[in-house]
Amino acid sequence: MPVTVPDRLLLGSGPSPVPQQILDALARPTIGHLDPAFGALMDEVADGLRTAFRTANRVAFPVSATGSGGMDLMVANLVQPGDRVVCGIHGLFGQRMAEALGRQGAHVVRVDAEWGRAIDPQELVTAIHAGDTAAAFVVHGETSTGVAQPLDGIADACREHDALFLLDCVTSFTGHPLDLDASGVDAAFSGSQKCLNAPPGLAPFTLGDRAMQRVDGGSRSWYFDLSLVLGYWRDGGAAGGARAYHHTAPINSVYALHEALELVHDEGLQARWDRHATAHAALRDALAVLGLPRLAPEGEQLHPLLAVTPPPDVDEAAVRGALLQDHGIEISGGLGPLAGRLWRVGVMGVGANPEPQERLVTALATLLGREAAPALDALAAGWAAA
Amino acid sequence: MPVTVPDRLLLGSGPSPVPQQILDALARPTIGHLDPAFGALMDEVADGLRTAFRTANRVAFPVSATGSGGMDLMVANLVQPGDRVVCGIHGLFGQRMAEALGRQGAHVVRVDAEWGRAIDPQELVTAIHAGDTAAAFVVHGETSTGVAQPLDGIADACREHDALFLLDCVTSFTGHPLDLDASGVDAAFSGSQKCLNAPPGLAPFTLGDRAMQRVDGGSRSWYFDLSLVLGYWRDGGAAGGARAYHHTAPINSVYALHEALELVHDEGLQARWDRHATAHAALRDALAVLGLPRLAPEGEQLHPLLAVTPPPDVDEAAVRGALLQDHGIEISGGLGPLAGRLWRVGVMGVGANPEPQERLVTALATLLGREAAPALDALAAGWAAA
Repeated sequence: MPVTVPDRLLLGSGPSPVPQQILDALARPTIGHLDPAFGALMDEVADGLRTAFRTANRVAFPVSATGSGGMDLMVANLVQPGDRVVCGIHGLFGQRMAEALGRQGAHVVRVDAEWGRAIDPQELVTAIHAGDTAAAFVVHGETSTGVAQPLDGIADACREHDALFLLDCVTSFTGHPLDLDASGVDAAFSGSQKCLNAPPGLAPFTLGDRAMQRVDGGSRSWYFDLSLVLGYWRDGGAAGGARAYHHTAPINSVYALHEALELVHDEGLQARWDRHATAHAALRDALAVLGLPRLAPEGEQLHPLLAVTPPPDVDEAAVRGALLQDHGIEISGGLGPLAGRLWRVGVMGVGANPEPQERLVTALATLLGREAAPALDALAAGWAAA
Repeated sequence: MPVTVPDRLLLGSGPSPVPQQILDALARPTIGHLDPAFGALMDEVADGLRTAFRTANRVAFPVSATGSGGMDLMVANLVQPGDRVVCGIHGLFGQRMAEALGRQGAHVVRVDAEWGRAIDPQELVTAIHAGDTAAAFVVHGETSTGVAQPLDGIADACREHDALFLLDCVTSFTGHPLDLDASGVDAAFSGSQKCLNAPPGLAPFTLGDRAMQRVDGGSRSWYFDLSLVLGYWRDGGAAGGARAYHHTAPINSVYALHEALELVHDEGLQARWDRHATAHAALRDALAVLGLPRLAPEGEQLHPLLAVTPPPDVDEAAVRGALLQDHGIEISGGLGPLAGRLWRVGVMGVGANPEPQERLVTALATLLGREAAPALDALAAGWAAA
């Protein structure tokens, strides 16, 4: 039997809705990973990533794995056993990084904040100065809570210690203002299935020269060894050599990423950020009318991920289940300490538009036994205010 | 600009030609990685993999990475630093595994054979008995040379030492006779882009209970930690629990793998092996007529990969380039010590059929200045003899 899938509107924490033109790109005929025609596409993808990351880094490429594979690659290449690494933790993904750093043998210095709040950047700066720091890591967009982390002062503190500034921008990438070079980020990873609207399977990655100096080809992992990966991905022209075979790149996934980056380019990064901000605010207002307050305080919200508190008298899992099964709309529940106490709604790429949001608001109103009209009015007003 | 790709017939070492119905499956709408509908597909994929691997192992799933990621996952979970691991090396992929084992801190005991020959299994058995062996690894189908490795006696020797028998079947999987359980293999990895004809991006993987006992959740890699991965992939029903989020699976790649496994199921594994054997022999005869002798001696050939020696008076890279640019046909060159001295022709999945082989033989005859007819006759005779 051919694969059949139900009709879904993906408004959870990701994957996000994949537009038909990206699916079409995905399904172009597979060609070889050493075909010169694929090499040309790789160069264009690298350019598109540099633009979207706002970086002049020579190295930008998609890791042949999902977002968490990008995390693993970052740790395997840029952190040595015994390194003092300051790790900001204000949700599941900071916690995950702390675990990955621990597995690598790093001395992890935790800087915690309550789940649902940003970390005071000054606390990170203080922690960086408190020892012989090799690297500092933060999650820019905490997908588990819908909080955006301010990056102020972190890069300067890192530079005083010759430490690297490492960033997880899985959910913020192209959906929330982020200028890697202006923020002094040395290396960052993302995922293809959030604001880019490509299918999951690739982890956009970039690193600058300071980070490249840590890459010594001695990573425990063969697959994620940057010195080998870059023999294939680094621009053959710029590096003055041919692409050396390492592993077989996921050709079709790269097609899809290429198309996704084209869509970013066509819209323009600033306009895209603005649209996500508008979409977030409009949906926040609409869900507030339905009695669903946002977890993140104003100023700390992550535009691509709106986390709200379900009414205490409602079986949140049952409502999410009915939303999926009866209305074909996926949203996500809470994780860790917020399990059962949070709904996480994606506002990502094409999902950050009035039509999908209207469908969600209408369905949620029905399931919660509320009138939809006032919430829809709030949604429309939010979009009209843009 | 939308992604455009040139028309290619992929008859190299992989990726192999991807049939339209697999591309169609790939491009089905993305759904969520925790959607119950996706969970059902995952179960079907696990079943399909078990059938194709000929195993009753409870655990069979695709690693969210390309084939070499499967290798990394195997090493990260089943080999401990200090372990004595016997590693058969008769080409690039055995050498690669030796490097991966070395990075993991294993004590690697090499058993080498000339590139282009199989390893005498008795030499592997002797090496296993020569110490306190924790694991033995061989490459079943050496893609760099087109040689199939006999597995006789290895499992028995391993069991005497409570050692694991580990296998790379990237290129042989579903294209060359392989019965994992009958051969006593404890864990094996493959790739989606060889005989399965799916796009690259997934590494089919399986392991049995003896291997599972080594999985302690302490792998250096977070992404490849089997104890975490299996919380998501292991059959929710059999394990009696829900699927736990680990990373976001590459949804669309799993659709494509599902379709590829359906095609294997529809054809039947034995019939598929037979077809690959016929296709290999027919093409071997046709290329011999063109003056291109096979590297592997009779009895050691890997059906899905026919490696032949180009004529010494021919610029092999120029011919391969013209084959790609002027005829749209990709074949692969030699690697390592065989660079410049080998052509590697894929006989994989839908590529193992008369029509693509006729195209290749005709184009090669043209480029080598030979008459095509006698070679095409040999090809036809080979298929007629089946």
